[in-house]
Amino acid sequence: MTFEEKLQAYAELAVKVGVNIQPGQYLLVNTSVDALDFARLVVKEAYKAGAGRVHVNLSDDEMDRAYFEHASDEEFNRFPEWVVKMRDELIERKGALLWIDAADPDKLTGIPTDRLATHQKVSGAALKNYRNAVMKDLIAWSIVAVPSPKWAAKVFPNLGVEEQVPALWEAIFKTVHIGEGNAVENWCEHVKNLESRAALLNSKKYAKLHYTAPGTDLTIALAPQHKWLTGGSKTPDDTVFIANMPTEEVYTLPLKQGVNGYVSNSKPLVYQGNIIDGFKLTFEEGKIIKAEAQVGHDLLQELIHVDEGSCYLGEVALVPHESPISASEILYFNTLFDENASNHLAIGEAYPTCLEGGRDLENGQLEALGANISVTHEDFMIGNGEMDIDGILPDGTVEPIFRKGSWAF
Amino acid sequence: MTFEEKLQAYAELAVKVGVNIQPGQYLLVNTSVDALDFARLVVKEAYKAGAGRVHVNLSDDEMDRAYFEHASDEEFNRFPEWVVKMRDELIERKGALLWIDAADPDKLTGIPTDRLATHQKVSGAALKNYRNAVMKDLIAWSIVAVPSPKWAAKVFPNLGVEEQVPALWEAIFKTVHIGEGNAVENWCEHVKNLESRAALLNSKKYAKLHYTAPGTDLTIALAPQHKWLTGGSKTPDDTVFIANMPTEEVYTLPLKQGVNGYVSNSKPLVYQGNIIDGFKLTFEEGKIIKAEAQVGHDLLQELIHVDEGSCYLGEVALVPHESPISASEILYFNTLFDENASNHLAIGEAYPTCLEGGRDLENGQLEALGANISVTHEDFMIGNGEMDIDGILPDGTVEPIFRKGSWAF
Repeated sequence: MTFEEKLQAYAELAVKVGVNIQPGQYLLVNTSVDALDFARLVVKEAYKAGAGRVHVNLSDDEMDRAYFEHASDEEFNRFPEWVVKMRDELIERKGALLWIDAADPDKLTGIPTDRLATHQKVSGAALKNYRNAVMKDLIAWSIVAVPSPKWAAKVFPNLGVEEQVPALWEAIFKTVHIGEGNAVENWCEHVKNLESRAALLNSKKYAKLHYTAPGTDLTIALAPQHKWLTGGSKTPDDTVFIANMPTEEVYTLPLKQGVNGYVSNSKPLVYQGNIIDGFKLTFEEGKIIKAEAQVGHDLLQELIHVDEGSCYLGEVALVPHESPISASEILYFNTLFDENASNHLAIGEAYPTCLEGGRDLENGQLEALGANISVTHEDFMIGNGEMDIDGILPDGTVEPIFRKGSWAF
Repeated sequence: MTFEEKLQAYAELAVKVGVNIQPGQYLLVNTSVDALDFARLVVKEAYKAGAGRVHVNLSDDEMDRAYFEHASDEEFNRFPEWVVKMRDELIERKGALLWIDAADPDKLTGIPTDRLATHQKVSGAALKNYRNAVMKDLIAWSIVAVPSPKWAAKVFPNLGVEEQVPALWEAIFKTVHIGEGNAVENWCEHVKNLESRAALLNSKKYAKLHYTAPGTDLTIALAPQHKWLTGGSKTPDDTVFIANMPTEEVYTLPLKQGVNGYVSNSKPLVYQGNIIDGFKLTFEEGKIIKAEAQVGHDLLQELIHVDEGSCYLGEVALVPHESPISASEILYFNTLFDENASNHLAIGEAYPTCLEGGRDLENGQLEALGANISVTHEDFMIGNGEMDIDGILPDGTVEPIFRKGSWAF
């Protein structure tokens, strides 16, 4: 396949498999000018696939940064009503939402952490309805990524400037199964494989997982009504969509107060345009009681103190160390990729869909079943080639799930 | 001045003179990706000048065209509520609005005219509150323009591709008084000159204007309470702003039912990304009773039939044929420039500010005073070097205002 053919296949994949656009449906695309050419292709493919209207909401890293640097405090504490309306209108109209991520991992480096924290709180509160819709899969949504020059330079610092973006494109194409055969068919096969893995875990009904690795000794109780899910999600009217492309994970819901021990990260976390790395979290009855980072220590403190739920876990996800993304040995500095190369956890809000019938429950009911509620949901990577994970059945039986970073069954 | 210095001066001018940004104020910028670099400069200058927040709403000609080509009829008849909210929020918050125009004059060429007409009607109805705010200067707003490759190619078809955009930049810099001395000071002087011209016309209180030129013999009665205005506008709290940059006109309000005769255009009109040219309009008691165009005939019919008011005039503006823009002999295919090279009229809505106390009047009151109401306001150029205009005083005395395209006094 030529580069142009791959690009075309990727745009088609985002539209037909990612958000699985329906005839006449409204598609909102959030992206930056760095992804302009690809976004134009997506618009074309979306109309070809029958979209009723496509609106592309274009941002610019430089303008975004100027806002963080120079906006008045008053403005910084106010969230635009029209942005809320834009998302709410999409939800009301059962539209689909595609994020095309091209962000510079260092986009907001140097912005004071209290400013980043304020933004997180203000936007989190304003976009409550939107977050609820996304966390409950009330709309079809998907995140894909395309290289920007700054991001590609971060991933491939040793390549010549002209080679960085093409190298990142090729790496991304591989992760999303583009290059050999029909990409849409490849994805059907891939999701089927992940689902058989989730079915196996669901049949086990583990009470707890026990993680051990250098720097990690962590026990995570699972909510009694937990379900393991894959990247293949469903809207209330049964439209199947893929929220993350790539996706290699099976994931479920930890019991909010059931996490004890400590865990170390294995890949850097890019949070709000800043890198947090070399960190270790210690848990007691679910709560993070200690958090230390070699890089981005202050920002890590802000992250876990956004609200009450941001010092509890909301997601536990299993990804073998020999996943294709991991095998590439590329560090992407982008959670969409790095989380799919590694076992990971998420700080903050749990997915209600990981509980039987969870989509129809209110926050109070979800909490009663052990789900964490927060305005944050931040994945971080913990997996490596030395990680063992045991599953503990309700009767206390211990079974190996992972050995040396790979599935034990 | 180097190119970079001129660019910087232009951004500063747009912010400080165009919208005259106030400390802590919210600035909304509407522009396209073709103007990205300039928009980034504007953002920088706006914060430097004390803006509280700047949001740049970025569009893309190619995506816009895809919408006109492929959106479903249902979607095409619906206007996004969030766009209405975006403008209304700006008005409520007394923000400033800057348009940076970079559009390809042929952007929508080939789109069926009924589609263009539908868009005009649907957006016109949805943005009623916004239009009212702009027509009454309830907020500070300004339009500036920057070259896009397609626009520059249209203006300078005989230059090499690499020379077109720089040539259009230099032409634009000249029209906005950048290049010699301090641009902000140049503008103060320029607006003062226009205002003395308006004051003279206001002291006359003409009842009618009579236009003659090849293809034109038109009499326009002026509303009895008309005021001549210039490009220097004022918000209700007396912030002075320049709605159009460049601006060379003095303008006022025709009496809706007081226009008789015929008029021919002298420069092409770009309307909704299409060109209308070689046209002649015939009026009877204000109403356009005949409209014929050599280019864009069907679109001209759609334009004058958007609503009841779109076949009446809303503005009469005087610009001498020796204006600097006219003298450059460049045809810009962009109303912002071409209208400032030529006497022009506007089809559609009148500016309430052209009536004494008009800002505080409702539509019914405005109509009673002779003002036209419409969702359209489309300027078209009629001036040339052979145009004579007479002013007719209430007592019937005839005075020359223009002779051979130039001021007679």
